[in-house]
Amino acid sequence: MKKNLTLDGLNAASRSDFIAELGDVVEHSPWIAEAAEPQRPFATLVNLRDAMLDVIVRAPANQRIRLIRAHPDLANKTQRAAGLTEASTSEQDSAGLDRLSDREFEMFEQLNSAYKAKFGFPFILCVRRHTKDSILDTFAKRLTHSPADEEKAAITEIGRIATLRLAGLVTSSVALSVHGELSMHVLDTHSGTPAEGVEFELVELARYGVNRSLLKAVTNRDGRTASALISGRPVPIGNYELRFQIADYYRRRGINLASPAFLDVVLIRFGVSAPEEHYHLPLLMSPWSYTTYRGS
Amino acid sequence: MKKNLTLDGLNAASRSDFIAELGDVVEHSPWIAEAAEPQRPFATLVNLRDAMLDVIVRAPANQRIRLIRAHPDLANKTQRAAGLTEASTSEQDSAGLDRLSDREFEMFEQLNSAYKAKFGFPFILCVRRHTKDSILDTFAKRLTHSPADEEKAAITEIGRIATLRLAGLVTSSVALSVHGELSMHVLDTHSGTPAEGVEFELVELARYGVNRSLLKAVTNRDGRTASALISGRPVPIGNYELRFQIADYYRRRGINLASPAFLDVVLIRFGVSAPEEHYHLPLLMSPWSYTTYRGS
Amino acid sequence: MKKNLTLDGLNAASRSDFIAELGDVVEHSPWIAEAAEPQRPFATLVNLRDAMLDVIVRAPANQRIRLIRAHPDLANKTQRAAGLTEASTSEQDSAGLDRLSDREFEMFEQLNSAYKAKFGFPFILCVRRHTKDSILDTFAKRLTHSPADEEKAAITEIGRIATLRLAGLVTSSVALSVHGELSMHVLDTHSGTPAEGVEFELVELARYGVNRSLLKAVTNRDGRTASALISGRPVPIGNYELRFQIADYYRRRGINLASPAFLDVVLIRFGVSAPEEHYHLPLLMSPWSYTTYRGS
Amino acid sequence: MKKNLTLDGLNAASRSDFIAELGDVVEHSPWIAEAAEPQRPFATLVNLRDAMLDVIVRAPANQRIRLIRAHPDLANKTQRAAGLTEASTSEQDSAGLDRLSDREFEMFEQLNSAYKAKFGFPFILCVRRHTKDSILDTFAKRLTHSPADEEKAAITEIGRIATLRLAGLVTSSVALSVHGELSMHVLDTHSGTPAEGVEFELVELARYGVNRSLLKAVTNRDGRTASALISGRPVPIGNYELRFQIADYYRRRGINLASPAFLDVVLIRFGVSAPEEHYHLPLLMSPWSYTTYRGS
Repeated sequence: MKKNLTLDGLNAASRSDFIAELGDVVEHSPWIAEAAEPQRPFATLVNLRDAMLDVIVRAPANQRIRLIRAHPDLANKTQRAAGLTEASTSEQDSAGLDRLSDREFEMFEQLNSAYKAKFGFPFILCVRRHTKDSILDTFAKRLTHSPADEEKAAITEIGRIATLRLAGLVTSSVALSVHGELSMHVLDTHSGTPAEGVEFELVELARYGVNRSLLKAVTNRDGRTASALISGRPVPIGNYELRFQIADYYRRRGINLASPAFLDVVLIRFGVSAPEEHYHLPLLMSPWSYTTYRGS
Repeated sequence: MKKNLTLDGLNAASRSDFIAELGDVVEHSPWIAEAAEPQRPFATLVNLRDAMLDVIVRAPANQRIRLIRAHPDLANKTQRAAGLTEASTSEQDSAGLDRLSDREFEMFEQLNSAYKAKFGFPFILCVRRHTKDSILDTFAKRLTHSPADEEKAAITEIGRIATLRLAGLVTSSVALSVHGELSMHVLDTHSGTPAEGVEFELVELARYGVNRSLLKAVTNRDGRTASALISGRPVPIGNYELRFQIADYYRRRGINLASPAFLDVVLIRFGVSAPEEHYHLPLLMSPWSYTTYRGS
Repeated sequence: MKKNLTLDGLNAASRSDFIAELGDVVEHSPWIAEAAEPQRPFATLVNLRDAMLDVIVRAPANQRIRLIRAHPDLANKTQRAAGLTEASTSEQDSAGLDRLSDREFEMFEQLNSAYKAKFGFPFILCVRRHTKDSILDTFAKRLTHSPADEEKAAITEIGRIATLRLAGLVTSSVALSVHGELSMHVLDTHSGTPAEGVEFELVELARYGVNRSLLKAVTNRDGRTASALISGRPVPIGNYELRFQIADYYRRRGINLASPAFLDVVLIRFGVSAPEEHYHLPLLMSPWSYTTYRGS
Repeated sequence: MKKNLTLDGLNAASRSDFIAELGDVVEHSPWIAEAAEPQRPFATLVNLRDAMLDVIVRAPANQRIRLIRAHPDLANKTQRAAGLTEASTSEQDSAGLDRLSDREFEMFEQLNSAYKAKFGFPFILCVRRHTKDSILDTFAKRLTHSPADEEKAAITEIGRIATLRLAGLVTSSVALSVHGELSMHVLDTHSGTPAEGVEFELVELARYGVNRSLLKAVTNRDGRTASALISGRPVPIGNYELRFQIADYYRRRGINLASPAFLDVVLIRFGVSAPEEHYHLPLLMSPWSYTTYRGS
């Protein structure tokens, strides 16, 4: 989904173009855009999003079930080969569902089968808010719920998916605010200054597969990165590790450390449970000590 | 080597028994005990040890070389099958040389060959002061030295080996003091008390093989363990990780944490370069922050 | 009270000597020792103490009131001039009641008058467990209690006074254990070692008078003091300040600090509410940061 | 000095108005504005300032001495009564020179006399960059310098004074950037959130007089203050104390603390030596621990 639409453009477009452009904001369900279209013009993206979600809420029960059934399984290779919407493919890839270990793949197969056997529709989750681990955890937990609760949960997740898709698809003077931020800060308490030039890596941890390196970077003059590690989108629920190369940093500054250094790589392992919040991870360090905390 | 000898017993023993008992304090070299024997009685174990090392220092050069050559290779399966001294086997096992990955085994083979090709004698190292990683690092570094330096290094290491063997073999009113200590302490800054009941693990890290779990334990009422994690012997040079299960601890105390918790397992990775020193690792923690440092 | 009595000696003494020696363990009330005497010999000091307190508990109500009335006022200059027991004088001095500011003196006068007017007996408090501030706070609070509660409180305090007097007066193979400890520890996270040679001061804070310097000392090689700042006696309830001269320390170590230094004197202000507990105050410091916490 | 002039206005003003407006940018020395005037228009305030300072540098030596002599003494009551420039009065007041203790007043008198006796001109210092303590310290130190060094120092300080006066007097699209910032941040590691509602006070410490409370405030939702404690001007060189009422904060949050609390008021005493830098003081705290450091 390329971000080349504008709200003004959508308000001015023909009815058929409007429907075509927004037909996949909710998976394979152009009827939602169709039902919302007469309410044009929309003053803000929030109004457009709310109008579309309102269509779902007001739809007859059997149509809502069809809507849920229109969604693909997670990590289903057959469906993927047959073709998902571009948005679904990109979302599943973002959570690493295209790179599963054998064990993970097997877990998804079993969970998909069990879920559909119990509820008669596929498991729906806004995967951009999750890592593989938390998808599997949520899947297993929701499998124990009642059908009524799962129908509600599916609709909630469809709303989250639609919000993120709209935010990625349409620009507007008042943006659809999508929250979530992950940032860090390294302070050198040996010199009393921000630590410039510290190499670090952000890794997403996977219980059943291979950990995934999300980024490698070097701190700037202020001990930070020019932009947050993640921003303007949910920080996927899951466990992470920041790995700071602090012995290298101190040696480059001319500080004589033994070999091996007392502190070489500092690992900060942390969990994200509220993907729309700001997770700030400061590291206060000397060659002989460090402190970390949930900052703000 | 069972610790059932006493210094008094050795002082009173027949000459031949004295030599037999101490024949392997220096690998396959009873002539050293033989040459030291006439100086009996020894007032302390330090005197006995010094007398034996003095024999080595005063020996003719070619005898010293024979002594060095009497030592086994490190991690040599053929020699191990043919039989090392009981002490050598136990020492090599303590450093994990009996459990090498293929890559590590290959590295040892290459280093042993290169070393013997260059110097004409085997690489000698007091492996009780090292982890596999630091043995490999030291091996590679010493390979670049001059023959004269390596001969000196070998004698130094033989002295260290003899000291640890004597300390393990002979009891005395004044013990041979063998230094080295590793300890930890967990303070809960959320409750202002020592953290009792924190499960933790000490792991030895291996760059070329598999990390080794050295111990699992639970903190006591004072946030410590009844005895130090390592004491009365060198803390092997190398890299380690302490892994504290702090989310479990807080949940057991009735503190409500999200899932995943912000802090679940706290990892403290640290290096040991001075095996005879005391490494004390305090952890000050709350569910949202932690501090560690080299304590005392 | 000089500590020159032994439990064995007291067990063997004549009845009259026994009573004479212990006549002031409870202020001006030799009848208590007299009533406890026939239970000799006492196996431990705890038994002796308990026997004496038991006499009080079993005494008729009017005798208990007379006992309470036998106690002096706190900080009463007239009574002091007329002569208190040696023990009372020493106890009141230890809490600084001999060095009151005008405002403090006035507060004591008013509280003494109000208390006696309401209850008909003097306010009794084991002052060795208190600072001036906490005596005044406790005084004001107890003034609001009922007569029955105050009679109970007075007896409790008399027991505490007797325990501390006995512990100071009589030695025994099994000592009367009197708990309470205050200690500190300075770690230098700039060098990774204990901070040796840090000058510091312990000050007792006074809300209505002048702060009192309790001691000045210099940290030893382990960043501590040879013995705890307070030990083997209650740490008086109150507020304190530890003042560490850290800029001086770092300058002596050759570290170049600006003038004024970012950190010069580090002040740790802390309160003691449980005088029989151990208060341990570590300071982890660099020239640019510090951490303190309730240690153990 | 009210900030009602603009650079455009000054560029467009008559020559006599230009000189009148800027006549006291350098104390009682309109000849400097007069000599700079023909270079109008000035593109930026920096250009104007540099032009005025250039006049001083290029003036004949005896005129520079007259310029220095045109400055008032610091803390001289007679001169103050006779009338200083409005700017001088306001600057001296900002440093507290209108509120001296007897001891401070005496120190200033002695230093003024000694300085003028030695150098023949008054001691000039940009007092907006200093506290009383650092004025006295700098005064005593500069008294030991050579006349040539002091003449240079006086010119440097006149430049600093002129810069701050211009920045306060004239607005411009490109402001004269005047650096210096003091800020704080309170994080609650007990709850994992910024600490909202912590009352605190900033105090300027005085060695020879009375400490001065600079501000009292309460932290906002982000654990900060809406604007920095000091910004857009130098943070006066000197020693300060931040006093945080943390027991009150925790009690309001429903956390049960003993009386007295282990931590009640947290004092952070810090020194400022580089007034144009940013001093950021975070406090990470629980009821049982705290950490502070020079942040960024």
